[in-house]
Amino acid sequence: MEVTRKSFKDCLNLVYAAIEEADFLAIDGEFSGISDGPSVSALTNGLDTPDERYTKLKKHSMDFLLFQFGLCTFKYDQKDSKYITKTFNFYIFPKPFNRTSPDIKFICQSSSIDFLASQGFDFNKVFCHGIPYLNQEEEAQLREQTEERRSQQANGVGTPSFISPSSKGPAHVPDEHKDFINRVVEKVEALFVGTDKTVDLEPCTGFQRKLIYQTLNWKFPKGLHVETMEIDKKERFIQVSKVDEEEKKKMEQQKLEKEQGQLNDAVGFSRVIHAISKSGKLVVGHNMLLDVMHTIHQFYCPLPEDLQDFKEVTMCVFPRLLDTKLMASTQPFKDLISNTSLAELEKQLNESPFKAPQIEAAEGFPSYNTAKEQLHEAGYDAYITGRCFISMANFLGSFLTPPRAYVSAQSKLVEPFYNKLFLMRIIDIPYLNITGPDLQPKRDNVLYVTFPKEWKTSDLYQLFSAFGNIQVSWMDDTSAFVSLSQTDQVQIAMNTSRYAESYKIQTYAEYVQRKQQEKEKLTPASKSWMEDGWVKSHYAASGASGGFGYSRALRKRSGSPTVAEQGSPEAGDGWSNYSFPDNAGSKKMKTDEVVESKTSEGWLKTSDTKESFGSSPVLEGDGADPVKDTEGTLSWQQASADAAVPARKSQKNKKKKSEAAGASTSLFEVPEVW
Amino acid sequence: MEVTRKSFKDCLNLVYAAIEEADFLAIDGEFSGISDGPSVSALTNGLDTPDERYTKLKKHSMDFLLFQFGLCTFKYDQKDSKYITKTFNFYIFPKPFNRTSPDIKFICQSSSIDFLASQGFDFNKVFCHGIPYLNQEEEAQLREQTEERRSQQANGVGTPSFISPSSKGPAHVPDEHKDFINRVVEKVEALFVGTDKTVDLEPCTGFQRKLIYQTLNWKFPKGLHVETMEIDKKERFIQVSKVDEEEKKKMEQQKLEKEQGQLNDAVGFSRVIHAISKSGKLVVGHNMLLDVMHTIHQFYCPLPEDLQDFKEVTMCVFPRLLDTKLMASTQPFKDLISNTSLAELEKQLNESPFKAPQIEAAEGFPSYNTAKEQLHEAGYDAYITGRCFISMANFLGSFLTPPRAYVSAQSKLVEPFYNKLFLMRIIDIPYLNITGPDLQPKRDNVLYVTFPKEWKTSDLYQLFSAFGNIQVSWMDDTSAFVSLSQTDQVQIAMNTSRYAESYKIQTYAEYVQRKQQEKEKLTPASKSWMEDGWVKSHYAASGASGGFGYSRALRKRSGSPTVAEQGSPEAGDGWSNYSFPDNAGSKKMKTDEVVESKTSEGWLKTSDTKESFGSSPVLEGDGADPVKDTEGTLSWQQASADAAVPARKSQKNKKKKSEAAGASTSLFEVPEVW
Repeated sequence: MEVTRKSFKDCLNLVYAAIEEADFLAIDGEFSGISDGPSVSALTNGLDTPDERYTKLKKHSMDFLLFQFGLCTFKYDQKDSKYITKTFNFYIFPKPFNRTSPDIKFICQSSSIDFLASQGFDFNKVFCHGIPYLNQEEEAQLREQTEERRSQQANGVGTPSFISPSSKGPAHVPDEHKDFINRVVEKVEALFVGTDKTVDLEPCTGFQRKLIYQTLNWKFPKGLHVETMEIDKKERFIQVSKVDEEEKKKMEQQKLEKEQGQLNDAVGFSRVIHAISKSGKLVVGHNMLLDVMHTIHQFYCPLPEDLQDFKEVTMCVFPRLLDTKLMASTQPFKDLISNTSLAELEKQLNESPFKAPQIEAAEGFPSYNTAKEQLHEAGYDAYITGRCFISMANFLGSFLTPPRAYVSAQSKLVEPFYNKLFLMRIIDIPYLNITGPDLQPKRDNVLYVTFPKEWKTSDLYQLFSAFGNIQVSWMDDTSAFVSLSQTDQVQIAMNTSRYAESYKIQTYAEYVQRKQQEKEKLTPASKSWMEDGWVKSHYAASGASGGFGYSRALRKRSGSPTVAEQGSPEAGDGWSNYSFPDNAGSKKMKTDEVVESKTSEGWLKTSDTKESFGSSPVLEGDGADPVKDTEGTLSWQQASADAAVPARKSQKNKKKKSEAAGASTSLFEVPEVW
Repeated sequence: MEVTRKSFKDCLNLVYAAIEEADFLAIDGEFSGISDGPSVSALTNGLDTPDERYTKLKKHSMDFLLFQFGLCTFKYDQKDSKYITKTFNFYIFPKPFNRTSPDIKFICQSSSIDFLASQGFDFNKVFCHGIPYLNQEEEAQLREQTEERRSQQANGVGTPSFISPSSKGPAHVPDEHKDFINRVVEKVEALFVGTDKTVDLEPCTGFQRKLIYQTLNWKFPKGLHVETMEIDKKERFIQVSKVDEEEKKKMEQQKLEKEQGQLNDAVGFSRVIHAISKSGKLVVGHNMLLDVMHTIHQFYCPLPEDLQDFKEVTMCVFPRLLDTKLMASTQPFKDLISNTSLAELEKQLNESPFKAPQIEAAEGFPSYNTAKEQLHEAGYDAYITGRCFISMANFLGSFLTPPRAYVSAQSKLVEPFYNKLFLMRIIDIPYLNITGPDLQPKRDNVLYVTFPKEWKTSDLYQLFSAFGNIQVSWMDDTSAFVSLSQTDQVQIAMNTSRYAESYKIQTYAEYVQRKQQEKEKLTPASKSWMEDGWVKSHYAASGASGGFGYSRALRKRSGSPTVAEQGSPEAGDGWSNYSFPDNAGSKKMKTDEVVESKTSEGWLKTSDTKESFGSSPVLEGDGADPVKDTEGTLSWQQASADAAVPARKSQKNKKKKSEAAGASTSLFEVPEVW
């Protein structure tokens, strides 16, 4: 269902109801661009830390506009064993609410626009009929302004821009306006003695309206209702009505309601995000980090500087997230799925060993034909994303004894995938962990090399030619990371470089330490998000605005299993590749003792602690009834060995690959597609 | 006539012909925004110098996209005494030409977009069907790249990104590609012995194509034509044809022509600007400074830092400009026209003492009905602008003895208005003088005041309350210009301020001096545009690109009266308000001895020297035949006294106004509308 400015108000209850009844939600956004800084390849260095990646995306992607938001709600129909979907395609545009509201500027990237154009995207629906929005702060400001103006008009002081210290008592009317004001007074006197109930004054300027409000309030403190009307959003005039006190109250009440209505219209699409947030439902996306960042940035608050703070805000806005690209890149799917781009994923999930899910559109909602692709329409992409999630979730049920054909979005089987957002093109950190510290690969085979700006990749290959295969990740014109295939080569390279003049080598550990020191110099006392009260004060204020309560969301969040208290980190046996920082934000984490694998099959589990999800990597299954969970007894290792034929085949391939690629940097296969 | 990417190539000759036959051209642009920095009011301080204004506009407006360009050509039909118009509405979008071409980012301002949307603007025509463009440098780069690739393919070296030093001799084929390349060789050998004339190889990567080019060139130096083909802009494959030397040459010629064609397609809309430029025709616009800046910036070269350099480039691109807003704000029109916004101007020029011009659309071109306004469609606005110009030009003929009903665009009567672009909202400098130094009002009644950031306008009014009326032009949070009504108050204010601690006052002269010193510190050796050879080298290069010759334009320009040598400045009697700088760029200017007025009626003439136009303010008229000029004998002073009744009436008003407003700052009435 397409939703534009015209239909938004009428659709809103439909949207609320769809969210309310849903088992889970899928979302997708379309943007006016991806990167306004370096090229996408420079934006996504293969050895970025999560902090660095977040900072880059924030800096170079947030000035684009999220201008189409797809929401697809999925409700499971127990009786017919099928999902019922309601798909909404919202067109979004920051139409200025009035002359004092912010005049948003956003960037368009011609390649992105051209790509959407080639997919038949309708830009007129965005720019001419897009739904407006306000973030929490803008909303609070506007409510304040409205409140202020209202109380001033009640006192006859006019709009804020015209406040003068001497506004009490009779209005001071400048000479050039005296005739005009006298004519107005005559008209109103005539209204009192005549039979008409209202009189429309001639259109006039804001200053003149202020004079009228002041004069009439002073001359006729009772018996009048005065209101500014608008013709075609251009001219404004004042309507004066003869009323008794009863009517006056009623009219002022109506005026207030009208203003509240206009205000809600201005908050616009943000109300949908508030509703999603408030519902606490699982929100599924495909490669959704940018979607989440844009959504928060546009409809909640400017993104915080610090990654840890971003994680906190994200958990307030989206208490439960699931990224299907991350899920598809993780065991037991990793071996079965060769290409995790949304279109390819959907195709593969329709074939054995997966099953195409039973899905039907609710009455009055668009029914998508997946054979006829409509990719890159946000609503369709959200639908396909939800579809992929269902297929993968149900597949997890096949590992249970007895197998289950239906696994709900609330199942413990799905929980390990919660709140981990796929990180594009990072060699050894597959995801951003929203509810805990991020993986910290040691990278002890990585060198940080600085050199003259004339150097090219071939110069680096030349320099390290003695070490066999290397991998180069450019930082800028004069520096790059070089990953060696053997960790013990690092010392040899370091020794050799001591006598070099044209280039300089540091170990990755030295590089990180220096960065850390530089950062500490810049921000001597780092405060945590929660400590400095930003969340509390900000959210308390917005909660008071009535539309949406962060405080409620916070309560809800702390009651959910995803943010339960976590223990402190201890290095376990399986930690040769990852370590957690001592200062992992305000959260502490206990490592999971049963983790043994240090290859890619193991990485997801390394961060899923018993405490946080109440589930060990030894899976617990759930039944067809999402409430009554039954126990399962398979681990992924066994599962993939027992899986269908294609799984075995790719298992072999994988082994061969991991032998060829060597030790640590090939833990995670970086996808080619953005 | 609407022109999009689809129809552009077919329309181009029509456009060229229309420009060629025209007496003058009118243009207008629509942009994706106006100001990405401060608000428009902060962007346009009433006491900006032309340098400051240029710098601000360049900084805060050039990241928007000119996405609709209106061109209306006007050709006078002597026989029927009417103008014939051809109107073109070009939709513009920087669609990337290929994967290596620049990925333009541009800003959209929501208020501007919303305004255009409310006027029925079709954004899909821009974003889906806009004509691409390249500036001179991009064009030169692309031609170079194409040339390089071609010479490399001819040598079998493949695309530039795959050059290796060892590319002579048999290609080094990596093991994993050996099978593939062997299969290709087999296929080509089969082609030689078979009856087919061509064989299409399977789609492959760029690297594989390079290997194929290298291998086939080495193995089969004769008898083959090898060409890369594209399927749906996605997959590429190689087509191999069996040819004799004759055919081979022919096919390579065709390939070359195809590439040239694609290149011209990429240069796209810039070719229209080249044609306008080359024609040397008078180009008319309304409030056209931003249009000129955007046009140059987008289709020629990034705007130069320095205003003087901008003027030089402007004269190369548009040798003759005329701004109808400036014309309408100048005598003899100033007194007759109350509102110079395009829509209002057009209405007023249809009524006495003006005459609606006889204009007809050429066959096959849109005929606009001015009663049904289509303002803010660039083509329509260009048409209306040309229409206004004709009415005003013809009105000048009424001052001649005998009066003439038709005054051509080439008439000496019009020349005083050439190359002066209207400056929005500057109190005392009405225009930017493209062909000479700008007016330099003394501003000896102006103070530069710095104060704590808590201060508001009311604090300034308070501070200067003893001096009567003042005018405040805010600079930033802590400084503003304050214009006093009496110059002799300046010294009193300065004396008083000596003992002040919270605020500081400088005279305008002191302020300018300090600014100048700061600037000189930053750029110790300032070179002139011409001296440093930028123009020559840059334009010579672009001239070589074949599409358009700057050198020709320069010759043409120096032959036109507008850029003839100008004398050196001498202070004349009438110069109490304006002075020219000693270092007025590389140009020198002789003041016009007959200038006497220091009010607004005088300002246009102060910069029109006898030398530069071959005409003194004592007007020379021209006949109906634009070639044979006859002499006129009226000056504007006489003219406005003799003008029709409305003129006399407003003349009175003006006197009254100038008495009321006092001395110098009210020289020019600043329009309210952007």
